[in-house]
Amino acid sequence: MNTEVQTALSATEPRKIILDCDPGHDDAVALLLAHGNPNIELLAVTTVVGNQTLEKVTRNALSVGTIAGITGVPFAAGCDRPLVRTIETAPDIHGESGMDGPAQPESTIELDPRHAVDLIIELIMAHEPGTITLVPTAGLTNIAMAARKEPRIVERVKEVVLMGGGYHVGNWSPVAEFNIIIDPEAAHIVFNAGWPVVMVGLDLTHQALATPEVCAAIEAVGTKPAKFVMELMEFFTKTYKDAQGFDYPPVHDPCAVAYVIDPTVMTTQKVPVDIELTGTLTLGMTVADFRAPAPADCKTSVAVTLDHEKFWNMVTDALVRIGEVDV
Amino acid sequence: MNTEVQTALSATEPRKIILDCDPGHDDAVALLLAHGNPNIELLAVTTVVGNQTLEKVTRNALSVGTIAGITGVPFAAGCDRPLVRTIETAPDIHGESGMDGPAQPESTIELDPRHAVDLIIELIMAHEPGTITLVPTAGLTNIAMAARKEPRIVERVKEVVLMGGGYHVGNWSPVAEFNIIIDPEAAHIVFNAGWPVVMVGLDLTHQALATPEVCAAIEAVGTKPAKFVMELMEFFTKTYKDAQGFDYPPVHDPCAVAYVIDPTVMTTQKVPVDIELTGTLTLGMTVADFRAPAPADCKTSVAVTLDHEKFWNMVTDALVRIGEVDV
Amino acid sequence: MNTEVQTALSATEPRKIILDCDPGHDDAVALLLAHGNPNIELLAVTTVVGNQTLEKVTRNALSVGTIAGITGVPFAAGCDRPLVRTIETAPDIHGESGMDGPAQPESTIELDPRHAVDLIIELIMAHEPGTITLVPTAGLTNIAMAARKEPRIVERVKEVVLMGGGYHVGNWSPVAEFNIIIDPEAAHIVFNAGWPVVMVGLDLTHQALATPEVCAAIEAVGTKPAKFVMELMEFFTKTYKDAQGFDYPPVHDPCAVAYVIDPTVMTTQKVPVDIELTGTLTLGMTVADFRAPAPADCKTSVAVTLDHEKFWNMVTDALVRIGEVDV
Amino acid sequence: MNTEVQTALSATEPRKIILDCDPGHDDAVALLLAHGNPNIELLAVTTVVGNQTLEKVTRNALSVGTIAGITGVPFAAGCDRPLVRTIETAPDIHGESGMDGPAQPESTIELDPRHAVDLIIELIMAHEPGTITLVPTAGLTNIAMAARKEPRIVERVKEVVLMGGGYHVGNWSPVAEFNIIIDPEAAHIVFNAGWPVVMVGLDLTHQALATPEVCAAIEAVGTKPAKFVMELMEFFTKTYKDAQGFDYPPVHDPCAVAYVIDPTVMTTQKVPVDIELTGTLTLGMTVADFRAPAPADCKTSVAVTLDHEKFWNMVTDALVRIGEVDV
Repeated sequence: MNTEVQTALSATEPRKIILDCDPGHDDAVALLLAHGNPNIELLAVTTVVGNQTLEKVTRNALSVGTIAGITGVPFAAGCDRPLVRTIETAPDIHGESGMDGPAQPESTIELDPRHAVDLIIELIMAHEPGTITLVPTAGLTNIAMAARKEPRIVERVKEVVLMGGGYHVGNWSPVAEFNIIIDPEAAHIVFNAGWPVVMVGLDLTHQALATPEVCAAIEAVGTKPAKFVMELMEFFTKTYKDAQGFDYPPVHDPCAVAYVIDPTVMTTQKVPVDIELTGTLTLGMTVADFRAPAPADCKTSVAVTLDHEKFWNMVTDALVRIGEVDV
Repeated sequence: MNTEVQTALSATEPRKIILDCDPGHDDAVALLLAHGNPNIELLAVTTVVGNQTLEKVTRNALSVGTIAGITGVPFAAGCDRPLVRTIETAPDIHGESGMDGPAQPESTIELDPRHAVDLIIELIMAHEPGTITLVPTAGLTNIAMAARKEPRIVERVKEVVLMGGGYHVGNWSPVAEFNIIIDPEAAHIVFNAGWPVVMVGLDLTHQALATPEVCAAIEAVGTKPAKFVMELMEFFTKTYKDAQGFDYPPVHDPCAVAYVIDPTVMTTQKVPVDIELTGTLTLGMTVADFRAPAPADCKTSVAVTLDHEKFWNMVTDALVRIGEVDV
Repeated sequence: MNTEVQTALSATEPRKIILDCDPGHDDAVALLLAHGNPNIELLAVTTVVGNQTLEKVTRNALSVGTIAGITGVPFAAGCDRPLVRTIETAPDIHGESGMDGPAQPESTIELDPRHAVDLIIELIMAHEPGTITLVPTAGLTNIAMAARKEPRIVERVKEVVLMGGGYHVGNWSPVAEFNIIIDPEAAHIVFNAGWPVVMVGLDLTHQALATPEVCAAIEAVGTKPAKFVMELMEFFTKTYKDAQGFDYPPVHDPCAVAYVIDPTVMTTQKVPVDIELTGTLTLGMTVADFRAPAPADCKTSVAVTLDHEKFWNMVTDALVRIGEVDV
Repeated sequence: MNTEVQTALSATEPRKIILDCDPGHDDAVALLLAHGNPNIELLAVTTVVGNQTLEKVTRNALSVGTIAGITGVPFAAGCDRPLVRTIETAPDIHGESGMDGPAQPESTIELDPRHAVDLIIELIMAHEPGTITLVPTAGLTNIAMAARKEPRIVERVKEVVLMGGGYHVGNWSPVAEFNIIIDPEAAHIVFNAGWPVVMVGLDLTHQALATPEVCAAIEAVGTKPAKFVMELMEFFTKTYKDAQGFDYPPVHDPCAVAYVIDPTVMTTQKVPVDIELTGTLTLGMTVADFRAPAPADCKTSVAVTLDHEKFWNMVTDALVRIGEVDV
């Protein structure tokens, strides 16, 4: 493949992505952003255990798809537990349903019968090399399984833009983030696979706060999907205040989608990143080595600084484009 | 399912197995034993990286199938690397081809297009619960991937009878065995899945020595398959002498098949077994807790003492039953 | 120093030992054996946290010394906690006092003001090289501290004959023994220091059962010290039955002393042994590598088979020699 | 002791410190600063293996003491190797002597015969509680040994102000600093002992760069000790450039002394800090938990921002006060 031509094309053509998620309040916003933004072509939505059980996050994904009026996009369920570790969910942040707050409509989308791992593999093998970007916003179990089951996908994927980790910030432990620590072995596989990985971690997403101004702008859109987002943010604000002491909740997952839409929404830095698997205090840490300039063949980079206004404008704009949806 | 009825049936009906292997000299003997013994119904042969690369062990499996005259059984290739670790093979024991020694014929068996992980899942889901025994004689990557991709197989499998580990004996480290240490995370998945696991480890297989008497009995069979086994044993004798100081080589893998054919060929003991994942000296150890009688719900047992004569008679008998095969 | 001459001398001269202990029922027997046997010259008794707190085991050591009628031997207290880990004691085996069962007399021995670590160093530096044997029957904190504070003791010590570990047997975890797991870092220091180490572990000491015949023989001695041992054994029998399911209690610590008195009381095997410090399931395991003959410079050996009769005769004989003691 | 009175006194009386070091270019500056500043009463200088072997750093310490004209202060050597790990030194930073660059004079100071560990204990036990500050600028082996040998020192020490670690910066690994990673077990002991610990880590000391302006100011002092510092900085500039890509070398160790002289020379933050002992990528990391405000009983704090000018003025001022020294 001619990379230069590809790059040129990608400036004009929408970016094909597979969103692998565990909705999840911020996953829901990520999905709405991906659906509403014209620079994104959403090939599939896959789900994986994370914020809640596979059953719950899959139901939530279908609900969000219904609310957003998504059609013609396969939704497929994947792994129901991490590779090695036991299941750990986040009810204190996302509630018992995994997406507490707004009422959830009856879904009008039917679940694809394929396993998420197979769907991911099929799509990547069926498209031109270098055209599909994986956007995981959950634990990396599905992505890791796909890479091990069909190793040829690694060089065919354009890049992996994931929400997870943090080079200087943790949430589920002093130095580890939820999406990584719930399946550190899967993260180890994904970060070491050899494809380009952009880590949109807590260092960045803790800048993506849903401030009152942000919420006001979303509310002003005035549609049912916008109201849905508002209600998600209300619940998220409360749990992030109670559980982690935040004044305004960090809306992690759409940051990864935003990067795919327009990388200038944030600064990134090339740096070697690896996953700690045996640490007593550091299990699941995304260990970044900033001691020297990254070597030329370094495939990992980390998100550093967010353009807060541009980011939230993207989200609001997507809601405007989605418009009213009758559920 | 009525377990008692099932047990009664299994005394008269052949046991359905899937042999997951990485031939490998002793894997070859395991395959011949499974094919030649009337108590075994071989549903599939699947391959996985281990003694050599996936490509090589798959080619070897097809060769052995050809030499044995196996027809109507799918052979499928699986994972080409361990879950988390980098590939480690055993050329000092099995040579560069993974099955050095005898000449290998052109294979007359065509590789099944399905991925081993999918074939394993399909077979288990298509058969009655409690009827299929998994017999892994390699690293446990395929089996672990199958259990994670389709968790329902766990309660449908009759039992997993694997060659690997050792409660008091190691070979690839002071306390770890090759099949476990090359993919300890996969082993952790398999040993903790919840299905019955019979660990036929080095404690047992180091009793399955191919002594001169054994080799003479095999030679006396006088067929091409028997000659093939003889040549395997000649090479194996030499490498086990050179690499590990054995007078006669331990022929590990057919012991697991032999247990399925007739559990009285060895004694076993119920004991909790788990896999060490973080030890500096003990990575991949199969840690057995002999301190107290195993609890009633213990699902793991370990092989202890081999009936050497009965075992080797099984192998010779299988070769006799296979008879001459024109390759 | 001429080693051959030293060996010759040691056959006729008593062996100088420092007993580092945490009495402890079996430590008490070890001390009585060391005191009563003419082949042992007891230079000092040092104590360390282990079976109970430092305060308790030190009081117990003084009591045993009083009961045994020991005079002219310094008793010194050492470390009150392990190097890195928090304190773990064994009240389910040794009771709240650390030596429950018999009444304890008022001690007539005054505690030496020196720290055990300093006393150990002073004695070793003051005696001829190759003349002092360290006999630790507790956690190895004192010995490790001494080796790090004064590294020159390592080459001056004749050997370290310790009760602890187990190459195939654990008690405090499936594969680790109490004395090692309570301070694995100290054990790592001692096993890797470079001096000869004889590990008298659970493999051996689980053969040193205080059977009814043994108890009858001790009772027949008829002295107060013998009665004291009897009462220790009564308590020990009960707790070992309740806590670990033993019919008769294994009397670990005097086995190490017995080896120093006469190595033919047990068989030993030279084998590399190291301590696992990071294992999740295997922390504190004494990892022995039996895969090949021990290299010529191997400094560690393990006890294998006990001469049960000879061992218990040593104990009874020591009690006879001690005779009556008025407390 | 009345803490408030103590605090009031300490504002007017010099602070008593024991400097535990491994000179080392920056240790030398730390010693000169401690000697020259009137707010410090230097009780002892103790040495420990680190930047170079114990023998070398001890010789260097005596040399610096001689150059500085220090009299009446005991210099004592401590541990010659880390608790558990093998020795790792830093010749690429400090040269083969451990203090390459300037010529070293014949020392006029005689080494104290006491072991550093004993000297530390003696001084702390001999002074009023709450009056002695430990200032380790090396691996923490001596301090850890002292805390384990005489646990009563822990509550008698005013605080431990150490150079080492880094909450977001590493040098000897991506996330670990030299003084901690060379003896992580000792660091674990010191950080968890219970005394107040101020960690002056790389986050802070990488701000303490010896810029050309700094060097010019030191040169302007014009004395032999100042010339000695200049030559140290010349060598240090070169090795830090070559080994770690710094334009100007970070002069770590005097920062800890500067904090004792005047805490306003830097900002600090109370935060729980613990030491990682089992991480594959993170061994020796000083793991700080910034996720929530530190609990009231938190005993650890970390240095954050340096007042560069105030710091270097302290150093220059100390050199001025030391004045000319005839060596």
